[in-house]
Amino acid sequence: MYIYGDRFSGNCYKLVLISALLDIEYQWVDVDILKDETRTDTFRAMNPNTKIPVVRLDNGEYLWESNAILNYLAAGSCYLPEDRLALARVQQWQFFEQYSHEPYIAVARYIQRYLGMPEERLADYAATRAPGYKALGIMEQQLACSPFLAGESMTAADISLYAYTHVAHEGGFDLEPYSGIREWLQRIEDQPGYVAIGHP
Amino acid sequence: MYIYGDRFSGNCYKLVLISALLDIEYQWVDVDILKDETRTDTFRAMNPNTKIPVVRLDNGEYLWESNAILNYLAAGSCYLPEDRLALARVQQWQFFEQYSHEPYIAVARYIQRYLGMPEERLADYAATRAPGYKALGIMEQQLACSPFLAGESMTAADISLYAYTHVAHEGGFDLEPYSGIREWLQRIEDQPGYVAIGHP
Ligand SMILES: N[C@@H](CCC(=O)N[C@@H](CS)C(=O)NCC(=O)O)C(=O)O
Ligand SMILES: N[C@@H](CCC(=O)N[C@@H](CS)C(=O)NCC(=O)O)C(=O)O
Repeated sequence: MYIYGDRFSGNCYKLVLISALLDIEYQWVDVDILKDETRTDTFRAMNPNTKIPVVRLDNGEYLWESNAILNYLAAGSCYLPEDRLALARVQQWQFFEQYSHEPYIAVARYIQRYLGMPEERLADYAATRAPGYKALGIMEQQLACSPFLAGESMTAADISLYAYTHVAHEGGFDLEPYSGIREWLQRIEDQPGYVAIGHP
Repeated sequence: MYIYGDRFSGNCYKLVLISALLDIEYQWVDVDILKDETRTDTFRAMNPNTKIPVVRLDNGEYLWESNAILNYLAAGSCYLPEDRLALARVQQWQFFEQYSHEPYIAVARYIQRYLGMPEERLADYAATRAPGYKALGIMEQQLACSPFLAGESMTAADISLYAYTHVAHEGGFDLEPYSGIREWLQRIEDQPGYVAIGHP
């Protein structure tokens, strides 16, 4: 398997983390989004949506969307429950991540860390504050009830939401008041096989 | 099962359509988002993210996020493949829907149909054009290769994307040039058990 991605993208890191936890081997191909490397014809043939991550599977097919790939890799492992409701709960948090968390927490980090806060993006940056903190509040509330987002044990949902939550400060979000989230981050970092973003 | 929703919301309609196709019984509870009925304490106890649809399952638990609920209802049916890659492909299109399609196609319709194009939302409306048409182009390209988004047969991915694509004109998107999409809409409408949005 080949993973096309950026070592510091949270969406790409989801795949690096699950692969480390499950000892899955892959080849890594760097794609520089700031150099428009997702806009080439070659890249569009892999993912017409011009986004990373993309994987090339051993059968030659390409798969895109970080959470779909994550679940594909996690299938059959302890990180993806088979029970119908437990699995729905994992997906609930993953769709929440893509709709109500990533567009604010990740986009703020992109504007701050990747683009360096250009004048013309400051209004967009400001607009991420309220919905970003709302998303963190919802996670905090769940983590007061269960050690992981979808229940008693760590699942793919935690990986999906860990990806950008643990670097939320790089987009100016302050996790200090969120003790439930901070303890949850630590529980994930304590997993055997855990690797940090940027690895290797 | 209870479904809390709005009869003309595409996200809620996903659940109505799968229930009709699979003969699943439910009670419907109307929630008026324009009257802030998702902002009450009672509603927040069901979904802290203050969005519809939400379902109350027979065991008393609440589940939210339309695509997670859809997959829960479709589990074990012909609309959700069991093969690992086929299932990942369904999820790829569903995450695409939530990240790259719904925020433009559905939001434009919301501004036009629900809010009636207020002055202060016209810039947001205009901003939906390019990414909305990009999403339609990606679907058109796939539908030139396979009759349904994830392959030869209809899956939950088609339901997820049908929901707002078939009413895209209510947000000012013109489907005329997208003959692949228009034929695909028809294939879905031809399914035995199909019901229209707004049903009953
Ligand atoms: N929903 C997608 C989002 C992927 C995404 O936004 N990737 C960013 C980098 S983290 C990207 O490729 N941006 C380049 C672009 O949109 O042109 C996923 O989860 O995979
Ligand atoms: N990602 C959610 C989106 C749901 C959503 O945006 N629902 C809208 C109606 S279609 C809503 O409840 N809006 C009210 C609000 O956000 O306050 C899902 O797929 O269920």
